[in-house]
Amino acid sequence: MKRRQFLQTGAAAAVAAPAVAAPAIAQSAPEIKWRLTSSFPKSLDVLFGTAQTICRYIAEATDNRFQIQPFAAGELVPGTQALDAVTSNAVSVECAHTPLSHYVGKDPALAFGSGIPFGLNGRHHRAWWTFAGGAEIVNTSLKKLNAIGLAAGLTGAQMGAWVRKEIATVDDLKGLKFRISGMGAPILERVGAVPHHLPTSDIVAALEQGLIDAAEHLCPHDDEKLGLQRAAKYNYFPSWWESAGMMHFVVNLEKWNALPKSYKAIVGRACDAANAWMIGRYDVLNPPALRRLVAAGSQLRPFPQPVLEACHKAAGEHHAEIAAKNAHFRKALDSLNAFRAEQQPWWQVADQAFDSATMRIR
Amino acid sequence: MKRRQFLQTGAAAAVAAPAVAAPAIAQSAPEIKWRLTSSFPKSLDVLFGTAQTICRYIAEATDNRFQIQPFAAGELVPGTQALDAVTSNAVSVECAHTPLSHYVGKDPALAFGSGIPFGLNGRHHRAWWTFAGGAEIVNTSLKKLNAIGLAAGLTGAQMGAWVRKEIATVDDLKGLKFRISGMGAPILERVGAVPHHLPTSDIVAALEQGLIDAAEHLCPHDDEKLGLQRAAKYNYFPSWWESAGMMHFVVNLEKWNALPKSYKAIVGRACDAANAWMIGRYDVLNPPALRRLVAAGSQLRPFPQPVLEACHKAAGEHHAEIAAKNAHFRKALDSLNAFRAEQQPWWQVADQAFDSATMRIR
Repeated sequence: MKRRQFLQTGAAAAVAAPAVAAPAIAQSAPEIKWRLTSSFPKSLDVLFGTAQTICRYIAEATDNRFQIQPFAAGELVPGTQALDAVTSNAVSVECAHTPLSHYVGKDPALAFGSGIPFGLNGRHHRAWWTFAGGAEIVNTSLKKLNAIGLAAGLTGAQMGAWVRKEIATVDDLKGLKFRISGMGAPILERVGAVPHHLPTSDIVAALEQGLIDAAEHLCPHDDEKLGLQRAAKYNYFPSWWESAGMMHFVVNLEKWNALPKSYKAIVGRACDAANAWMIGRYDVLNPPALRRLVAAGSQLRPFPQPVLEACHKAAGEHHAEIAAKNAHFRKALDSLNAFRAEQQPWWQVADQAFDSATMRIR
Repeated sequence: MKRRQFLQTGAAAAVAAPAVAAPAIAQSAPEIKWRLTSSFPKSLDVLFGTAQTICRYIAEATDNRFQIQPFAAGELVPGTQALDAVTSNAVSVECAHTPLSHYVGKDPALAFGSGIPFGLNGRHHRAWWTFAGGAEIVNTSLKKLNAIGLAAGLTGAQMGAWVRKEIATVDDLKGLKFRISGMGAPILERVGAVPHHLPTSDIVAALEQGLIDAAEHLCPHDDEKLGLQRAAKYNYFPSWWESAGMMHFVVNLEKWNALPKSYKAIVGRACDAANAWMIGRYDVLNPPALRRLVAAGSQLRPFPQPVLEACHKAAGEHHAEIAAKNAHFRKALDSLNAFRAEQQPWWQVADQAFDSATMRIR
């Protein structure tokens, strides 16, 4: 079909349509350009890539009428201030991709967006978020800050800590200078460790110079690229301090409310899809990275059971202390604990039984 | 704003827009009405609900311009013929929601859509599908049938079988009349059981009348509603024959190719989101159902390890036999086996370690 002929056909079709159709569509599919600030640098390719993927999904679903440009941490604001940028209107940033655990200083209940120490695994956290009140609880906190959050990515269980000396007993935690932030830090402090807040870029040097003894980071794929294996020999698991690793797409509330209904739906599905994208990418990239780390000499170590139990006890005390002063945090904690208690028997019979059985056979 | 005033504003906006804008949008967002046939009856509310949810997501994202009406199994065609309906043009059905394991008679590689015996768990199956070649392998099979499939829902590990007498040894499988279909049937046959293909509606009566001794179905939520607990005392786990339980949104290839790009993206994200919707619904509904079943007297039993090992050996032989005659099946099997071998060490360090640790503590 020649171009002229095509245009004529198109025009004829437009004429044949009811008179109100064209403005109705223009109204429901306006051209919108937003900016997104990510809490992650481009070097964390799966994490920053999740924000890029969400933006791409939204553009594809709207024929590029709704375009969001993703910026890496530091390009517009520092990674730990992504939520502030969205809520403050100081920078022209309508949305962010960020872990809500960054903002527990504003409201401790925001921790329940990411996942709390000894909380739910990734799959259960997602189910709790969507169908058991999690989204409502966390969005009650975000609404007060003038934002709304959509679940948008999961790491699943992360690698634990890179440590220079073996941790054999609870006593070995005493005085241990530990790079950790978020909800894990005050709990490690309760069992005697000394939490240090360090930017990612400083971790390796700080370990090498003995300024810290241990550091948590992310997963084998990211840890290997950062070079943590060169600075510490022992890699402990599991990461009990951030079990689900859920990320959020956070939007300024007025900007969100002004979106047409169909765009809200498109953003919602893009974020839903981002969960599978991110955990799938990590599932593909982490196993070969772990294999290379072990082949190069990294020593995998499980946290000894008494260490886990001491940390678990400290976590319970820490959470109870916050809950005693903060009714909303208590509501979140009770909801999550009840959900976990309900999940465990079925998990043991279903997926965990399947995984254990196939593991035993091989 | 009064209606007249609103219409005038709308008309003014349309006039102000570039002359080509309206037909361009109409072209890229045409009004389309499709019909979907599900492989499940409405009584399987999560499974049929997933198809309803996909249709709703697509309508919401397109302001109802792309509408798909979901029909339950039997309304247009029987549940096991959903793919045939989509590919044949005999019925006016553009798409289906169905487990591809129904169609292994057409092409055994279609089993890799759903998950094969002793295959991958739900999360790993999803990662394999999206990022490790699974989608390409299965869609090579579907393309020959004039269809394309998108992953659209996961059950995760299902409950195993409902059995009238305890299974203590491999010998107890000999002659056991077992209601099972899909890839599990020929494997149970290899270890001495007698597979029976029975429609869901006949299972309870067949167990009660002793026509069968054992039956696989789905998950506690569905099993309880069907009443299996009244017909068999023992509930065995895990279900090793369909580890992931992935469902697909299958579309007639010509109908798919004719969709505008943005609609393909919208369908893609609706299906991605359906995965989380379905497994989340099951995660919320299965645990309380399991609790009620046990409280009412159902006896949970793990398959004894020697039974699992005999079935695993039979599965390996069965798969090798098909692979020897079918290069495409071999390619799929090699790909999936390699992926599982790669996943296991990281899984043991990450999510499985976290789950085991929290389980031990409680």
